[in-house]
Amino acid sequence: MVARVLTADLPAYLGKRITIAGWLHRRRELKSVTFLVIRDRAGLAQVVLPPGGPGRPGQGQPGEETVLQVEGLVVANAQAPGGAELVEPVLTQLSGPAAPPPFDLYRPALTASLPTILDHAPTTLRHPLLRAGFELGAASAAGFRSALDGLGFTEIFTPKIVESATEGGANVFGIDYFGQPAYLAQSPQFYKQAMVGVFERVYEVGPAFRAEPHDTARHLAEYTSLDAELGFIADHFDVMAVCRDAVAGMADSVRERGRSAMQLLSATPPTVPAEIPHIHFCEAMELISAATGEDVTGEPDLAPAHERWLGDWAEREHGTEFLFVTGYPLTSKPFYTHPDPGRPRSSYGFDLLFRGMEIVTGGQRLHRHEDYLNALSARGIDPAPFAGYLQVFEHGMPPHGGFAIGLERWTARLTAAANVRQVRLFPRDLHRLSP
Amino acid sequence: MVARVLTADLPAYLGKRITIAGWLHRRRELKSVTFLVIRDRAGLAQVVLPPGGPGRPGQGQPGEETVLQVEGLVVANAQAPGGAELVEPVLTQLSGPAAPPPFDLYRPALTASLPTILDHAPTTLRHPLLRAGFELGAASAAGFRSALDGLGFTEIFTPKIVESATEGGANVFGIDYFGQPAYLAQSPQFYKQAMVGVFERVYEVGPAFRAEPHDTARHLAEYTSLDAELGFIADHFDVMAVCRDAVAGMADSVRERGRSAMQLLSATPPTVPAEIPHIHFCEAMELISAATGEDVTGEPDLAPAHERWLGDWAEREHGTEFLFVTGYPLTSKPFYTHPDPGRPRSSYGFDLLFRGMEIVTGGQRLHRHEDYLNALSARGIDPAPFAGYLQVFEHGMPPHGGFAIGLERWTARLTAAANVRQVRLFPRDLHRLSP
Repeated sequence: MVARVLTADLPAYLGKRITIAGWLHRRRELKSVTFLVIRDRAGLAQVVLPPGGPGRPGQGQPGEETVLQVEGLVVANAQAPGGAELVEPVLTQLSGPAAPPPFDLYRPALTASLPTILDHAPTTLRHPLLRAGFELGAASAAGFRSALDGLGFTEIFTPKIVESATEGGANVFGIDYFGQPAYLAQSPQFYKQAMVGVFERVYEVGPAFRAEPHDTARHLAEYTSLDAELGFIADHFDVMAVCRDAVAGMADSVRERGRSAMQLLSATPPTVPAEIPHIHFCEAMELISAATGEDVTGEPDLAPAHERWLGDWAEREHGTEFLFVTGYPLTSKPFYTHPDPGRPRSSYGFDLLFRGMEIVTGGQRLHRHEDYLNALSARGIDPAPFAGYLQVFEHGMPPHGGFAIGLERWTARLTAAANVRQVRLFPRDLHRLSP
Repeated sequence: MVARVLTADLPAYLGKRITIAGWLHRRRELKSVTFLVIRDRAGLAQVVLPPGGPGRPGQGQPGEETVLQVEGLVVANAQAPGGAELVEPVLTQLSGPAAPPPFDLYRPALTASLPTILDHAPTTLRHPLLRAGFELGAASAAGFRSALDGLGFTEIFTPKIVESATEGGANVFGIDYFGQPAYLAQSPQFYKQAMVGVFERVYEVGPAFRAEPHDTARHLAEYTSLDAELGFIADHFDVMAVCRDAVAGMADSVRERGRSAMQLLSATPPTVPAEIPHIHFCEAMELISAATGEDVTGEPDLAPAHERWLGDWAEREHGTEFLFVTGYPLTSKPFYTHPDPGRPRSSYGFDLLFRGMEIVTGGQRLHRHEDYLNALSARGIDPAPFAGYLQVFEHGMPPHGGFAIGLERWTARLTAAANVRQVRLFPRDLHRLSP
């Protein structure tokens, strides 16, 4: 292929003949002239077809989404995207002729239902508004990694095929592993803890699998988990401080790398305060009870409505979209959660709410071997399947903790997507396994 | 926890009382003095216990791998690691008392067999030599991403639970997906191609799953795949140029971020030439036949011995450890591989050899819908299970191609590991599912 200029760079070539390439985003046929709008990864460019010249509309002309290479002369035109357009074009078709796309991708928004959009995802994702959500996801993952790289963390890649269910027996996908039963990892929990014994501070960006029987707007059977774990902490507040820095790194990266995507979506990048306010679970439940008149003080967990209420409260009271909820009841957290020594029914587990939704869960973990045996026994869980996990605590583990950020939930909050499936590439759920 | 100083920073605190924390790496009891060597993520530090003072050896003293916090005075000692040590120490135990580790982690090398080392991975990985391999893996992944970020690529996260086998029906793990059959993705192939239609240039760092019936030193059931795919190429040489830049980015990152790990392993970072030499598969087979006297010109693929021979040849002829082999027989490559129009039995598929082993496979793909239908039909493959994949080619796809780098194979070559399992965290194979 001849050297190609990206559409966004067109204005730098005024008066020169150059070549662009991309998808035929829109064909607009007027009486005396036809405009082709070409879309590439950098933006849009307008190509002007002269009356009667080659590439005129009519029979056999390429339809929208056909991939074209266009050689032409760059001239200024204040009406065109970027203030420049291509005239005297020579067109070459690079793809086969495109079938009409299932939706007009050039319209400002796709009005189809979500299932229809997802059925045609390979094509509908080309729409700039849908595409933007994934750009923000990529920017966020990059920001997570660079924040933690700066804090002395090491990246790890842990197995997703595991011998036993991490978070308990429910919601786990079974695999036939060379004739032996195995499972898909619900989280890298056990492995990231073990690697604290090696690197002290580790993170992983990878898939997590939950056989979620819930068909809600915020559950996925497969999602991207941004996991971190660190040793030598005093308590969960040290974990929350690192979590705050990771989220701030994501917000910074969204502001920089995701700038045009945020503009396109008319979305506001979040401001992460130097210290995110925190509230104890019991206190939160009392506030909600007092405000709503419904007694929720005995509940083991926050319902989505409670998270929304607390999100509003944090906005009102602290002027921020972020709120840590600490001290979750021990019974609602996994067996490896560290109890609060001063309040034995509370734990050192926390969640982070962002714009009224839980996007992070974390906490201090147990780190002594006998504490694990006691915790399993107290819950009536057989320790045998956890033998591989428990061995690490026999050989010296520091006080440690960590957290996991759901990338799609974060991105959904950023883009104000009503459903987390809109910001997950090819989502998997109770009813969907393709494309 | 009080503010902690990392062992590597000790020399900056001469004459001051500070606190370090880490694992008891080694206890050395001499007649008049006991040395404790403390290991943290940054290195080692020596602590001197005075005769008769607190923390003296004997009954009840912590064993190796116990996690300790040590407050003490930093003094110069040319014999100690870094030229400084801690005296007048006050010890606090942060973990439970550690059980004796299965191996002496302070010895220069672990002499146990690989299966034994892997059985005890959470502890054996603490050995600096084993740990170093994983530092290089992390550095390499970071280098891959930063090289491709610089070339306009977007990171993607594609599903690992898929409806049909990507690379054909063999070697695939089956899942029970809410009562429906599904599979673990052998590669992100279909999805990264689809995303070329959205972002033009994409990469993914994620797990790939192969139900490998082979029990070899270079096969894993789960590995980390560094995948890239790009549109608007002339042919596979454009893909190879990006592949070269990705590998050069990995080598640069190993040289920078992985410097101490490379030194520890006495390993030499590779030098990636500005243009990696290439040889056509047919020519390679003729060279091997002529040199070895064994006629291999009819073979469909390179055997490991051939790869080693070619590695030596590239070193001799071109003075480099890297060699592209192009023009693989079409029959030995997947159905989506683009044929060589000038040599219909050859393909535009390539491999990259590094130090005599294939670490990358890639090529130009088909991009026209009818070419896919013809290719599937020529191989007698039913197109029905690929309906979700094929739809993208109906809607305009540019000429494109890509490649996948096996992270563990690359790291094994870097560290001269005899077995790829040594550089895979908690490897999975025919016989191993834990820890």
